[in-house]
Amino acid sequence: MMIQLAFDRMTIDEAIQLGQRVREYVDWMEVGTSLIKEFGMESIKALREAFPDKTIVADMKTFDNARYEFDLCYASGADVATVMGAAPTVTIDVCMEVAAQRGKRVMVDLLNTPVPHLESIYRYKEAILCAHVSKDQQEIAGERQSLEWLTQIQRIGTDGPRLALAGGITADDLFALSRVKPYVVIIGSAITNAEDPVAQARKIRETADALKGEMLCE
Amino acid sequence: MMIQLAFDRMTIDEAIQLGQRVREYVDWMEVGTSLIKEFGMESIKALREAFPDKTIVADMKTFDNARYEFDLCYASGADVATVMGAAPTVTIDVCMEVAAQRGKRVMVDLLNTPVPHLESIYRYKEAILCAHVSKDQQEIAGERQSLEWLTQIQRIGTDGPRLALAGGITADDLFALSRVKPYVVIIGSAITNAEDPVAQARKIRETADALKGEMLCE
Repeated sequence: MMIQLAFDRMTIDEAIQLGQRVREYVDWMEVGTSLIKEFGMESIKALREAFPDKTIVADMKTFDNARYEFDLCYASGADVATVMGAAPTVTIDVCMEVAAQRGKRVMVDLLNTPVPHLESIYRYKEAILCAHVSKDQQEIAGERQSLEWLTQIQRIGTDGPRLALAGGITADDLFALSRVKPYVVIIGSAITNAEDPVAQARKIRETADALKGEMLCE
Repeated sequence: MMIQLAFDRMTIDEAIQLGQRVREYVDWMEVGTSLIKEFGMESIKALREAFPDKTIVADMKTFDNARYEFDLCYASGADVATVMGAAPTVTIDVCMEVAAQRGKRVMVDLLNTPVPHLESIYRYKEAILCAHVSKDQQEIAGERQSLEWLTQIQRIGTDGPRLALAGGITADDLFALSRVKPYVVIIGSAITNAEDPVAQARKIRETADALKGEMLCE
């Protein structure tokens, strides 16, 4: 499983400084929605420049205006951009189209996506589907990844979209979560708010690597 | 009904220049999602400064991280900020809370909100609910405001949340749409892409004023 580090609720400089300290332990770097809304495309350009060898994920959370928003963030240096699974189908369709035209990738954020709507999302074979427990769900409602929900989406096979997991995930969660064979695990505050971010990033990397033998979907 | 002019797919300077030409015909000015994602909070600050006498709407389309995002845009000068109706309830709750604390307002964007979820949204009596046909739905799928959908949300009474309408609305639509007694009508490309934006803005203002006598919800 790959490790995606999400930067949120910080300045661009703080993100770059933190990223430099932990770069050897993470695979993908995510420009969080809060950085995008606070600083605009400058946030993506700066991370792209600071980390030319990393996959840069733009957490655009697109819900409309798909071509404009996806053109914008891919042109700013993103390799992967997010669209909400709860958005109209036509919007997700356009995101897939723009990504294909540019040789880039789409992550569909399943946060609060109605279950009946999942069926139509599974057909985006090239997409990465992200099972996401949001910051507000974690911090205010105390929610966590539920096995029931993950079981519902676990039907994603090796021939379908790949799976990402996000939402308050720590090193201790990786063993349980590895059961659903994630392609990417997204880590935010477990590293960015840690007293020792480097030690946490190393621990997460080592745990992920140790689980490698048990994964079917690497 | 009030007229909200939405700026999208343009630079901050273009928005300010256009806004100055039509300011006498519009009540609220919206910093579109594309400006926010492209230029960050700078877009809201610049419009706030250019139009100190207008209500500034930040089309944040918040889906998570509600306190952070709403604090950010209200501190940047927004009077109203948007959250998606399709977002988790806890997120909308926090938006309402932050707005109340700051004496600001929330617009809940009903784009693709599942109908069963509307029930829980009607309880936000202080909110403005926006029946929204998205850019992608209009431009790619050819959709328009449907009377069936508007009838479903028309049950919003004078004691409940107020109603906004958005999505490719032109001067010619105002008469039909006035049947659902909108509090705000959001106009984008009918003005911003018009050959003569000033003439269009004037026409929309005059049409709205002429309909005033027929409105119950002013």
